[in-house]
Amino acid sequence: MSGASSSTRGRRPGAPDTRAEILASARALFATRGFAGTTIRAVAGEASVDPALVHHYFGSKDDLFVAALELPVDPRVALAPVLEGGAEGAGERLLRVFLSVWDDESSRLPLLGLVRGVVDSEGRRLLRDGLLGVVLGPLAPRLGLDRPDERVALVASQMIGLVMLRYVLEVEPLASMDPDVLVATYAPTVQRYLTGELPP
Amino acid sequence: MSGASSSTRGRRPGAPDTRAEILASARALFATRGFAGTTIRAVAGEASVDPALVHHYFGSKDDLFVAALELPVDPRVALAPVLEGGAEGAGERLLRVFLSVWDDESSRLPLLGLVRGVVDSEGRRLLRDGLLGVVLGPLAPRLGLDRPDERVALVASQMIGLVMLRYVLEVEPLASMDPDVLVATYAPTVQRYLTGELPP
Repeated sequence: MSGASSSTRGRRPGAPDTRAEILASARALFATRGFAGTTIRAVAGEASVDPALVHHYFGSKDDLFVAALELPVDPRVALAPVLEGGAEGAGERLLRVFLSVWDDESSRLPLLGLVRGVVDSEGRRLLRDGLLGVVLGPLAPRLGLDRPDERVALVASQMIGLVMLRYVLEVEPLASMDPDVLVATYAPTVQRYLTGELPP
Repeated sequence: MSGASSSTRGRRPGAPDTRAEILASARALFATRGFAGTTIRAVAGEASVDPALVHHYFGSKDDLFVAALELPVDPRVALAPVLEGGAEGAGERLLRVFLSVWDDESSRLPLLGLVRGVVDSEGRRLLRDGLLGVVLGPLAPRLGLDRPDERVALVASQMIGLVMLRYVLEVEPLASMDPDVLVATYAPTVQRYLTGELPP
């Protein structure tokens, strides 16, 4: 669908199609090469625009990735309250933010689309790089966690499992459980994964 | 397809297709109506055979469902060691069995197929009824758990999240972590969900 105009070049910065084209190119590259393997330059090349234009529209590579994922909220903004207050209680705050985003139908629908991407390798890469790299990964250094990769992956394993049961498979009683009860139930787990003792 | 003759017992002469037909009908009905909404009689009707023949080939409705899911191992057999020893330590034993099945490539592949079913509503129903009804659900009464539905759903949320990270998204360090370390890492979580204190 995007191929019809993919070879246009020399559009003025204001052209609405250019932005969409850059975004489509970015999404395709992030999906096939992953976040780490994608450069702003490559995205610009794919979209036949100058790299400066990519920066102009989207800012940094992080910004571009967040835009390409079409996340309903910017995780860097949403997660700010988790970081405030440091590692103590971060599990509870993370769950609270997470549930507030997922419980809101307008943000849940696009997120469900991302989760359904697990069926193909490109969707899996977007989900992995998105969840680990952009949403949860940045928490580790900013909360000063030891063994950051392991702790972030453990947290992700509980978060995505909660998503699967509550929102995808809609298993009761989790599907209709009060968010406060869910937070209280899962907080000890997430907090242990963030800061508790782990096997050596 | 390949499973059609793998576990035949005392097959009636001449009808190799009948078993496969019953299985296909069962799978279709379980997927659209769920486990609870499907009867042996309805499966027989769908396959145009006598209900007695369904029982003859597959035994109980539970047996038929396990066969229809094409699980690589019979969960009722695999989980026997989890039940022995009672609720104490059940989390650790459950993780050990679970990982041994998933770490074996020959059983992992069909299970991954079941997990990929999340993209459509029929696949979700099979996954939900399979994981909750046949694999984990029966543990609750046999371990004497209070609030069985809630505890089983909590356990499922961690198990399926672990599956997603380790086997589907293949996130490191979980993807190549030693099973013993994984068991030690997740056991406190699963044990708490099984027998620990939960919010009122």
